[in-house]
Amino acid sequence: MTVRILVDGHGGDEAPDVVIDALTRVCADCGGAVELGIVGQRQVLQPLLAQAKLTDRVALIHADDVIGMCDSPAKVMRGKRNSSMHVGARQIKDGHWDAWVSAGNTGALMAVSKLVLRTLPGVDRPAIASLIPSMESASLFLDIGANVDCSPHHLLQFAQMGSCYMQVAEGIASPRVGLLNIGSEEIKGTEVVKEAGALLAEAEGIRYIGNVEATQIFQGVADVVVCDGFVGNVALKSMEGTAKLILNHLKHELKSAPVARIGAMLAGKALRRTKDALSPGEHNGAPLLGLNGVVVKSHGSADGHALACAIAVARREVEAGLLGRIRGAIEAT
Amino acid sequence: MTVRILVDGHGGDEAPDVVIDALTRVCADCGGAVELGIVGQRQVLQPLLAQAKLTDRVALIHADDVIGMCDSPAKVMRGKRNSSMHVGARQIKDGHWDAWVSAGNTGALMAVSKLVLRTLPGVDRPAIASLIPSMESASLFLDIGANVDCSPHHLLQFAQMGSCYMQVAEGIASPRVGLLNIGSEEIKGTEVVKEAGALLAEAEGIRYIGNVEATQIFQGVADVVVCDGFVGNVALKSMEGTAKLILNHLKHELKSAPVARIGAMLAGKALRRTKDALSPGEHNGAPLLGLNGVVVKSHGSADGHALACAIAVARREVEAGLLGRIRGAIEAT
Repeated sequence: MTVRILVDGHGGDEAPDVVIDALTRVCADCGGAVELGIVGQRQVLQPLLAQAKLTDRVALIHADDVIGMCDSPAKVMRGKRNSSMHVGARQIKDGHWDAWVSAGNTGALMAVSKLVLRTLPGVDRPAIASLIPSMESASLFLDIGANVDCSPHHLLQFAQMGSCYMQVAEGIASPRVGLLNIGSEEIKGTEVVKEAGALLAEAEGIRYIGNVEATQIFQGVADVVVCDGFVGNVALKSMEGTAKLILNHLKHELKSAPVARIGAMLAGKALRRTKDALSPGEHNGAPLLGLNGVVVKSHGSADGHALACAIAVARREVEAGLLGRIRGAIEAT
Repeated sequence: MTVRILVDGHGGDEAPDVVIDALTRVCADCGGAVELGIVGQRQVLQPLLAQAKLTDRVALIHADDVIGMCDSPAKVMRGKRNSSMHVGARQIKDGHWDAWVSAGNTGALMAVSKLVLRTLPGVDRPAIASLIPSMESASLFLDIGANVDCSPHHLLQFAQMGSCYMQVAEGIASPRVGLLNIGSEEIKGTEVVKEAGALLAEAEGIRYIGNVEATQIFQGVADVVVCDGFVGNVALKSMEGTAKLILNHLKHELKSAPVARIGAMLAGKALRRTKDALSPGEHNGAPLLGLNGVVVKSHGSADGHALACAIAVARREVEAGLLGRIRGAIEAT
C-alpha cells in the first residue's frame, strides 16, 4: 500500500527549508511506499523543490496564504481561508491524500482541521496529544490544550483514543491508561476527575491503572495519561520551562569558571545527549485525535530529521488504520 | 520584639536530626531575637537537645504521636489528636507561640491547622504557596494543592494573600500578580479562570498584570502567580519530575564515558550549583496563607540550613504582621 502524505510547506520556525530537508529524507528512506505532497506558496516552494531535486517526487499544491505562529485561531478561521492549513485539510477531506502533517500554530491547526474535517462519528471533542519522554520509553499525554473545560465523558474518550494510538504507533497491545491527579487515592481530585476515574474503572477495552501524579509520568508508569486541556497545557509548559531553566542555568554555571569550562568541553557530549533526549527529535509528531482524518502536528522547532519522524507517525497511523480503530472503540461504548 | 517560634520535631525525611541542626543554627544566628520551641516525643527529643547543648535555649513540648509522610489527612484528623502537628497548632491557637513551622506531610499540616486555627475573618479558603525560582529571583505560586475546585473569588483571595506575603517576605512594595493560563489573550482559559481574570482586573490593591503561562513563571514576569490547587499541584510536580529526569539523565550520561567522567569532575561545581539553585535551600518555607495563625511548611527533604530558612520566613511573617495585613486586604474588598 502506498500512503499519500501531505506536508505543510509553511509550518514551523525554519519553514520551508526544514520541510524540504524532511521531504528529502523521507524520499531517500521510504522509496515508493510513500507518496509525498507539499502545500504552500508556489513561488516560494517551486525553486526549493527544484534545487533539492524533488520536483518529480513531491507534488506541489498551491496555497496563497501563510498562517503565522502568533495568529489567533479566531483570526485564522475568519480571514485566511486560502492558507496552507485550510488547503491541506481540504485536500485530506476530499480524499486526495491520506494524512496531513504541519509544524504550524497548534491552536490554528486544530481549529481549521475541526472545521474542515469534522470529528469521527461519536467523538465529542478531538484532542491534541504529546509523547512525554521517560527514562525508558514515552507516555502519550492528552489533552494538551484543545479542550479547556472537559466532562468526565470527554476524558473517557481521550483514554480510548490514546489507547488506540499507542497500539498503532508504539505497538503496545494493551496500553496502561492513567488519570492525571494530585494523589494516588481515589478520593483525590476535582469532581470531574473523580467521576472520570469511576467511568474509566468501568470502561471495557481500557486497561485503567488509576491515578497518576505528574512526577510519575516521567517514570513511565502509564502508556497513556489523560487530563483536560487546561491542566495538560500547564503541565507541558511547566516541563518545558523547567527544562529550559535547568539547561540555561547549567550553561551559565559552566561558563563562569575556566576549570568548569574545560569540564564542560569534556562533558559536552553528555550534555548534548541529555538535551537531545528531551528535545522533540525521535518523539516528534503529536497526533490530533478524534478528527475524521489523519492530522499530525510537528513541533515548531523540529529539524529535518524530527519532521521526518512526524511524517513517519502519520504513515503508521494510516497503515494501521487508526481512524477505523478509534471509530470502533468509540462505537463499542 | 522577641518572636516565639515553635518547630515540629518529627516533620521531614531526616527528622529529628535536621530539626536539631536547624535550631542550633537559629540559636547561633538570632541570639535573643527569637525564642524557640520544639514539639514531639520527649523520650526522643530530650537527649538530642542535651547533646546539642540546646536544653536551656529550646523549650520542649511533649506530643505522643507522630504523623507519617504517607498518613492520609483523613486518618490524621480522626486518629492522631495528640500528634506533634495537633499539639503545635493548639499551642499557636492558645497564644503561647507566634508561629509554627513543620516539615511534615503537607495535606495533614493544612488539615490540622485549619481545624485548630480556623481561617482569618473573611477568608474563604486558606492556600498553600511555594516559591518558584526563576533566573533572577523567585515567584510565589499558589494554591499548590489545598483547594482543588476553586471559584473566581477564591482565586482573587489567593492573589490578595500572595501579594501581602511578597510585600512582607521579599520586601516588594507592589507585587505583580499574574493569573496562570494557557495563553496570553483574555479569551483563553476555563470559565472560572476567565471570570477570575475579570475580578482581578477590577480589584483594588492588586497590581494585576494579566495571564501568565507556565513557561513564563521561570522568567520572573510576575511576583505572584495564582491558580487553583489542582492545576498548581500538577504544575509543581511537573517541574519536580522534569528536574529529576534531566539531572538523572545527565548523571547517567556523565557516567557512561571515561572522558565525560573527567569532564563531570571538572564541571562538578557547576552541576552542584545548578542543583542547589533548584533545591529548596534558600527558598525553603512555603507559607500556609489565610489561617488565623502563622504556619510555615518546610520541604520534607530540607537540610538544617534550609529548615533554618523556613524558620526565618516564619519570623519575618510575625515581625511584619502578615496576618493583620491579610486581614486588612480581605476586609477592604
